[in-house]
Amino acid sequence: MSLAITGAVLNGEVVGLRVEGERIAEIGPDVQGRNGDELIDAAGGALVAGLVNGHTHAAMTLFRGYGDDLPLMRWLEEKIWPVEARLEPEDVYWGTRLACAEMIRTGTVRFWDMYWHPEAAGRAVSDAGLHATCAAPLIDANRSVDDAREGALRSLEAVAELGGLVVAGLAPHSIYTVSEGSLRWVAELASERRVPVQIHLSETEAEVRACLESHGERPAGYLDRVGLLGPDTVLGHGVWLARSELELIAERGATVVTNPVANLKLAVGAVFPYPEAREAGVAVGLGTDGPGSNNSLDLFDDVKTFALLAKHAAGDPAAVTAAEAWEIATGRRAPALGASGRLEPGEPADFLLLSPNLPELSLGALDAGLVYAASGSVVDTTVVGGRVLMRHGVVEGVEEIVARARERAARLGIA
Amino acid sequence: MSLAITGAVLNGEVVGLRVEGERIAEIGPDVQGRNGDELIDAAGGALVAGLVNGHTHAAMTLFRGYGDDLPLMRWLEEKIWPVEARLEPEDVYWGTRLACAEMIRTGTVRFWDMYWHPEAAGRAVSDAGLHATCAAPLIDANRSVDDAREGALRSLEAVAELGGLVVAGLAPHSIYTVSEGSLRWVAELASERRVPVQIHLSETEAEVRACLESHGERPAGYLDRVGLLGPDTVLGHGVWLARSELELIAERGATVVTNPVANLKLAVGAVFPYPEAREAGVAVGLGTDGPGSNNSLDLFDDVKTFALLAKHAAGDPAAVTAAEAWEIATGRRAPALGASGRLEPGEPADFLLLSPNLPELSLGALDAGLVYAASGSVVDTTVVGGRVLMRHGVVEGVEEIVARARERAARLGIA
Repeated sequence: MSLAITGAVLNGEVVGLRVEGERIAEIGPDVQGRNGDELIDAAGGALVAGLVNGHTHAAMTLFRGYGDDLPLMRWLEEKIWPVEARLEPEDVYWGTRLACAEMIRTGTVRFWDMYWHPEAAGRAVSDAGLHATCAAPLIDANRSVDDAREGALRSLEAVAELGGLVVAGLAPHSIYTVSEGSLRWVAELASERRVPVQIHLSETEAEVRACLESHGERPAGYLDRVGLLGPDTVLGHGVWLARSELELIAERGATVVTNPVANLKLAVGAVFPYPEAREAGVAVGLGTDGPGSNNSLDLFDDVKTFALLAKHAAGDPAAVTAAEAWEIATGRRAPALGASGRLEPGEPADFLLLSPNLPELSLGALDAGLVYAASGSVVDTTVVGGRVLMRHGVVEGVEEIVARARERAARLGIA
Repeated sequence: MSLAITGAVLNGEVVGLRVEGERIAEIGPDVQGRNGDELIDAAGGALVAGLVNGHTHAAMTLFRGYGDDLPLMRWLEEKIWPVEARLEPEDVYWGTRLACAEMIRTGTVRFWDMYWHPEAAGRAVSDAGLHATCAAPLIDANRSVDDAREGALRSLEAVAELGGLVVAGLAPHSIYTVSEGSLRWVAELASERRVPVQIHLSETEAEVRACLESHGERPAGYLDRVGLLGPDTVLGHGVWLARSELELIAERGATVVTNPVANLKLAVGAVFPYPEAREAGVAVGLGTDGPGSNNSLDLFDDVKTFALLAKHAAGDPAAVTAAEAWEIATGRRAPALGASGRLEPGEPADFLLLSPNLPELSLGALDAGLVYAASGSVVDTTVVGGRVLMRHGVVEGVEEIVARARERAARLGIA
């Protein structure tokens, strides 16, 4: 059975849209449903592309509101790491299901997840119906290098077996927690198996200083030297990237995902130099980071903070426009994240219908409304891969998901 | 008829609450409804104090999404001022009704409004059922001083006649648009009639420089000299206040309302020095500023940005806690705004019930959830002065309000 939408507003025009399989088949003013289609009347609500969360640790919903407002190292050492050491796959499954429910509720259709037990996260993503790339963090500091690599390979293969909308990735945690040898190993494996890679890069000034001391060059240059700076690589954060690094990243075709809210919350001391990245031609995406350091998964919040912070840092209210920020939130400026951000025949049927007659979107330009005035609650209907995951703001089964996540948190002693 | 709430969660305990007239009569685990009470079962949703928006220009909902991403002076000169010159009271009425609908929807129970035709704004506030202080901006640069003062006085009296939950105020626009003589006139009138005053202060560095040049002292010192720095005065913004000014403000008992989102959006170049203000003992409230420069009226957005920005500016994730930020959002740290932020017998019956089983608030500390993870969509029920203004997320009459605001915007040529 196919899905058809009628009465949706796109660029000020009333349109219809038909889905066949997992893709958009037709879209335009004359498109109508056919006999036997599942039919949705958008009733004048806007049709927009779904949002893409380029960097998160989804299962950390379990840690939300646990140890906020602490300095980073105290938070990690006293709160997070002792609990993570006890994590079981079922914890990750239900923490990720909770995250998926929130993402569906607030219009995210696709995400890049780096977390422990990624096969459990991937199972949650499959069951929820979203797209995601899932990867285990690879850390070989303070442990056997062979064990670390073997774990990453095992996870890669376990996630790859899931198939469907879930993609397997590799996630060397950072240049300060992974040895040069293992970074080179990841680069070779990723190239051999053609899988996406994500790494935290240039989040703090201390990381940049340590890289200069140990390797005689800044983080992006070092990553390039070990063979990891290519079109399949996503760099999480990039707060402290210098102009020369941005040019190198653009040349290699790598992507930077900025996480403005988490960077403020952890007070990393600088703001991702977006105007310079744009000028250099870097592909840029948007992320929330984990719900332990944001603490929301509502990308409407992050896109606003992204635009505001770019203006503030540049000292110029015109430094970034709403239209541009919205393109970044829908993945249109970061093809490596897997979405085009375009609603056209042949594209994946990943889209949102907004509620009609919303006070906060009732006047003025839609892109400005989406970026500056809206929260995720404006989303009425979320469709991913042609499946309706939310209708009229209701994600089915959310009560059970909340209850099970609470049980897992209680088991871990944090709720 | 009185209102009674049962089954609400307050500080982890299930409680009931009874309202008599406009105030809370009883609250506690054993409080139940009586015969004839209007009864609301909170079904396990949290009970929290309503939010207070300390600085806005509510009717500017009409301008939302009109000329975003422009430098401040181009936005004002090309977009806002030409349209404001054509504003009629009915425009202000419907723009303010739209703002009130959004505030009710997102848990704001009280606000301080500075805008043209404040008697029309006050009428909208009365009809919506919220608390507000309404005042016309007084500007005497480039116009007759007598006309400007007469206008402010006329507005003061017209708003005062409304009574009910609406309070009349005086709002000299700023130290750079109002003459010293008129500032002294406002100070005397405010003291004589015992009315609250709000003024924009220290929003930009240029304002501070001009004040030093013209008056030989910084803005707070100048305001003190003209007699306007007292316990009834609210200072909007305060971004560039120096430590000595914060100490003077604390000594005089004046209040600063910070508007973090608008300050970022207009790129004023600095961050309100909250930790220094706290140390000096300044009363601090939170505001959105007008919907033309935010563009939201959802204070959940602003309280998060406030906390994040304070951490960022201080370079310390512990610079402000969620509990502290939440107290600021509920007016508890700025008594001059009119709310205590406390849910106790004798306090105004201004409170919110949150939806139960929300994914984003399902785990961890409630205050961290409210500040970092929630948006205004978590509010299920809004009660102001004992009247239920929203139940289950539905504000009655919102479709008509949206339609009328659109008509007014169309009349003004901006929609």
